[in-house]
This record gives sequence, C-alpha cells and structure tokens, in this order.
Amino acid sequence: MATACSYFKFELIQGDRTGPRLGRILFRHGVVETPAFFPVGTVGTVKGVSCSELEAVGVRGMLSNAFHIYLRGNLDLIRRLGGLHNFVRFKGMIITDSGGFHIKSLAQHTRVTPEGMQFSSPFDGSRHFLSPEEVVHIQEALDSDVKLPLDVCPSYPEGEKEQEHATRLTLQWYERAQQAVKKPDQGFLGIVQGGFDEALRRWAARETVKFGFHGYAIGGLSVGEPKHLTFQLLQAVNEELPSEQIRYLMGMGKPQDIVTAVEIGTDLFDCVIPTRNARNGTLYTWKEGVIRIRNSSMKDDPCVIEEGCRCPACAGGYSRAFLAYLYRCGEMLALKLLTLHNLFFFQTLMNRIREAVKKGTFGELKTQVLDLFGED
Amino acid sequence: MATACSYFKFELIQGDRTGPRLGRILFRHGVVETPAFFPVGTVGTVKGVSCSELEAVGVRGMLSNAFHIYLRGNLDLIRRLGGLHNFVRFKGMIITDSGGFHIKSLAQHTRVTPEGMQFSSPFDGSRHFLSPEEVVHIQEALDSDVKLPLDVCPSYPEGEKEQEHATRLTLQWYERAQQAVKKPDQGFLGIVQGGFDEALRRWAARETVKFGFHGYAIGGLSVGEPKHLTFQLLQAVNEELPSEQIRYLMGMGKPQDIVTAVEIGTDLFDCVIPTRNARNGTLYTWKEGVIRIRNSSMKDDPCVIEEGCRCPACAGGYSRAFLAYLYRCGEMLALKLLTLHNLFFFQTLMNRIREAVKKGTFGELKTQVLDLFGED
Repeated sequence: MATACSYFKFELIQGDRTGPRLGRILFRHGVVETPAFFPVGTVGTVKGVSCSELEAVGVRGMLSNAFHIYLRGNLDLIRRLGGLHNFVRFKGMIITDSGGFHIKSLAQHTRVTPEGMQFSSPFDGSRHFLSPEEVVHIQEALDSDVKLPLDVCPSYPEGEKEQEHATRLTLQWYERAQQAVKKPDQGFLGIVQGGFDEALRRWAARETVKFGFHGYAIGGLSVGEPKHLTFQLLQAVNEELPSEQIRYLMGMGKPQDIVTAVEIGTDLFDCVIPTRNARNGTLYTWKEGVIRIRNSSMKDDPCVIEEGCRCPACAGGYSRAFLAYLYRCGEMLALKLLTLHNLFFFQTLMNRIREAVKKGTFGELKTQVLDLFGED
Repeated sequence: MATACSYFKFELIQGDRTGPRLGRILFRHGVVETPAFFPVGTVGTVKGVSCSELEAVGVRGMLSNAFHIYLRGNLDLIRRLGGLHNFVRFKGMIITDSGGFHIKSLAQHTRVTPEGMQFSSPFDGSRHFLSPEEVVHIQEALDSDVKLPLDVCPSYPEGEKEQEHATRLTLQWYERAQQAVKKPDQGFLGIVQGGFDEALRRWAARETVKFGFHGYAIGGLSVGEPKHLTFQLLQAVNEELPSEQIRYLMGMGKPQDIVTAVEIGTDLFDCVIPTRNARNGTLYTWKEGVIRIRNSSMKDDPCVIEEGCRCPACAGGYSRAFLAYLYRCGEMLALKLLTLHNLFFFQTLMNRIREAVKKGTFGELKTQVLDLFGED
C-alpha cells in the first residue's frame, strides 16, 4: 500500500457518485483520510497557531492563498527556500487557491478582461495584472501540493448573462492554465463554477471535467444564496463529476453544512468558520452546541470548554472563566486556545463522519449534528 | 537538601553584600537559581505565550499585577479555583506586584491620601479605592508565591519634599500592610523606594529593613533618571540591605543593565523588555547584538534569527524572511515566535551570568555584553 506520492493522488475507498463516500489522498508527506476538513491559512499559516500546534490537533492540511502570498511575500525567496512548505514549516498538505475569488472580493479597482484580472493591492494600492498562466506559475513556484486555476466567481444575485459570461470565461482560462503547466505532477483541481442556475452548473461541471484535472473543487457557493439552493447545486455538480475523483467544496462550512454535503458525495472542505469563530469567541461543543465565551455566564464558570475534550485548551485545564478573562483582556493567548479547541472539534467531527460512514451509521450522526447546530 | 518550601525562601550560596552573588529561591514548585530574570505577565500570562511554552524556554517565574487582575478578573472565582497558579495554569513562581506603580501610571483621576489610593479604572472608568490592607488581601486571595506592599513611586524629576513625603507615606503603609497579613508564610518583599537622593534612598532602605520582610525589591528606578544615577542609587541600597536576603530590582532591564546590576549585588530582575521589544520586532542575538525584523534586509534573509539558538523559532527553522513576512502580515504567530526567541535569549543570559560568577569570569561576560549592546 502506497503511503505517499509525489504531489497528490486520490483513491476512492467506499461509495459512488453520490451518497457518503470514504477515500484517501496521498501526498508528499503522507495520507489524508476523507471526508476531511482543512482550515484556512491564507498567508501560509493559520492565524495564531503554529504548524506544530496544527499537527497536534490533527490538522492534516490547509488552504492557502496564492494571491495573498504573491502580494505580500517574496516569491523568489520562497522558491529558493524550497517552496511554501519549507518557508512556513508545515508538513501537512497545502492547497493554494488561485485568488480569483479574493481578487473580486478584496482587491480594489478590479477589471476582469478576457486576458485576466487587473486590480490594485488591498495592502499597498500597487497595480497588478494576473493572467491564468501567471497564476499557475505562482503556484508552481510555491510548490504547493495542489494548485487551482484562476476563475471568475459570480456574485449572488447576478444576472443570467453575467453568470454565463463568467462561466464561459472561466472555462477559456482553464484551457490556458492547463497549457501553462510546467509541473504536471503537482495536483491541479478544476474549479466548477456556473453560478446559481442548475443547468448552467451541470454544463460547467461537464465542461470542466473535459480538461482532465486531477480532481474537482466546487466554487462560488455559499456567497449569499439560500441554503437549499446551495445543496441543490452541489448535488447536481456531484452527479456530473466522475466518481473516482475528489470533490472539494470550497469555503464551507458549518458542521451542519459538512454533514449535509458529505451525504451527497463531497470529500473535502475548507472554511474559516472554526478559526474566525474562535477569534469572535464562538466555540463548538458536542454537548451544548455553540457556546460564546463573551456570555456573562462564562465569567464564573470553572469548567473547561468541554469536559473530556482532548484539545490543548480543555486538556490543559483552562477554565471557561479564565478563557473569558483572557479574551476580555484582549490577550492573543485566548485566541490561540479557542482556535485550537475549534480546530480539534472539526477534526473530531471528520473522524466521527468517517467512522459513521464506515459503520453505516452516518444517518444517526447527521441527525445528532443537525439537532445540535440547526440546519442553517 | 530541600528542593521546595511552602511559598518562598532565599538562600545565598556565594557572594556578599555587594559584588556578584549566587543564590537560589525555594518555592512551592521547585527552585529558581539566581541571578534570575522573570518576564512580565501582567494579567497572569505573558502576552502571546502559553505557560507550557514559557516553561519550554526555561522561564521559571513571572511578575503579575494584582491591580490588573483585581480590576479585570474575578477574585472570588480565582480564590475558589485555588489561586492564580491554578487559574492561569502556571507552575513557575508568581510574584504579584501591588499596583502602586501602575495606579500612578495607568489609572485616571488618581488621588493618593494617607488612607490609600483612589482612582478610576483605565478599563471601564469605575471608581476604586485601594488601601495597603486591601492590597495584601487581594494578593493573599490570589495566593501568589510572593506579594508586594502598596507603595508610592515618585516620578522623575520630582521635588525633594514630594520625594520625602512619598517615602514616608510608603513606610507608614508598610506597617499597616504587615499588620494586615493573614498568610505569614506567603513570601512578602518590602519595596525600597526613596526617590532620587542617595541619602533618602539609604534611609528608606534601612527603614524598610526594620519591618522584617522576607527580602527586598528595589522600586522606582529607571523611570527617566540618568543611568549613572540609577546604578549609584542601586548600589547604595544594596549596601544597606542585609546580604543574606534577596535583592530584586523591579522593572529592569536591558542585558547591559542586568550585568551592571548583578555586578553590584542584585539577584532578581523583571522587565517587559524581551516581550515588548519582540512585539516591536526587536530581537536579541549573541553575534549581532540587537536586530530588527522590520529592517528591509530581513525580507531576503534565509537564515534563522541566530544560528545554533535552541529557541522554538530558531530550532523550528523559521527564516528571518518568513518571520519578517509574518510580522508584515500582522500575524500573531510572528509575535509569539519573536517573544519566545527573546525570552530564551534572556534565560541564556542569566545562565551565562550564573556560570561566569561561579567560574570567576563574570568580568569577561560583562565586557562581552556591553560590547554587544552598549552601556545605555
């Protein structure tokens, strides 16, 4: 049994085109069992947490952002130092996002032309142009385990014409991106766009598959559209995608979203939810659902966040009262401890999902998660 | 050989009234070799660093602030949870400062009366009154290893009359503080004040000694007076203090200050320098002296902060370029890694000082430190 490969390989172990699946990703430093959840480490690290702390709570990979690293880092130096893994000292899997979504949402004076994206840096106002080819080259310089092609994400709501235009332009860019590849063994996932119309999404999925990517990300969802539409579109896309390749739902989600998406054949997730919510003082637990460290009741609560939890905050014996006090004092340490708790919760959730799919008890777990966290 | 005691015991191993000394502090959780340096953990934790990380870089104690914890924490809960150590999960030594200095420097609408200090909280504007007795009770509730009495610190420059008044009032408060003690075995150090006149300082030292404290802190120095005056006053105080008891210089200092103060008979130090400077991007090294992570040369520097250093940042292989990038991106992780490096540097400095005093080579070490960091 192979336990690693040069960049990225997905093996489907159980399941089919839709319905809960089990699989595994082989990459340079080991194996990631799927369904899996990766936190977001935009600049190459997860906010407030070192890579050894990430590994200690079971995190096996992260989603970083080529756009941010390109604008703020020193690409030549990162290349000379042997790539992003070596620069940030992470042995887990790193997927780099292309920046298509972030250029649209963060940059200023953005102009999307057939050639690529023109924009001003949100950090220093400098003017930049990124083409589909350049975005491939950046990610190959970073030597991430998986690169993603430059895409155009329609906002919600947006007109039919605009959605179709964005979808067609994205597909044209994929052709150019594929031709720009110089590291063919680096993982390269197509991103299925296609806006909010089911037929357009299905068509986009089929067209994206024609490029022969190593697997498929599903992008442009959870950007304001109703939740039932999100999952209707996700199911439609999953029905179109080849079953033996990975399906990676980008930017989602809450525990209730993850179980719903796993149920319809999704393998991989990334989201800022566990880390951003931790920094806002919102914590996930298996007995009380979501709790908030800023609630006044926390000030007097001598218990840990969750009895029996093995995360560094709970296993370290830090009381809710102490964490609330640290948070109130504006201490960074609070943010780290809360982040580690939530990351550990999400890893536990994924462990339980895989266990339940294996045992055929996924339905019960899904009910438990929806009862705890609601459907929305 | 005893390796712990109920709260605090100092043993002088080598040296005398002045000149470099070696000693050790026995406290509930072990031994601290002196000369020693403690970082400042105002609210009970050192900014950005967990207690297990502190211990990993060799930190054996910290200075916390009763004033901050009283205003922002929940004293009753901390008492119920078994004291500050248990609340913050630190097994090292905790000295709690009385707040005299911080009420004067941080609080608003402060009025010093013969009864105590009236002030408004800098956090929520609430009005408070703290008496010398109350400050003892707060620290006994916190159950720190060492408490300090409420004192009045003259500013620099301040008139002779004001300095003498502050000194006399402080001594009156020590009498009340001693009478308020309910935990006589908790370490209790007198703070030698006395402003900036050598005769007044000497008198204050002799008067403070009459109260029979477990040892002596030297306060009110390094608040703007010239450096030669600081050390002239410190030497005068050390000459007045009993040689068998600890001398703890509060709020200093830089490496060059520490070696200078050790040379004239000082045992213990606390300062924000390693932690605050780290957060400002200023780092201590043994080969290049002080370096600044914000310097543009750092962006391209693939080396660690200091080759051969065993701190988590250097031993973790984080390049200067990466740390500069993280710092530029405003990532908390940068502050933690830089803080750990500086804390490790200060622990190494104290190790080298003790080793040099033992071997009789302290003069050479002092020259090396002054050459690296200057005299001021």
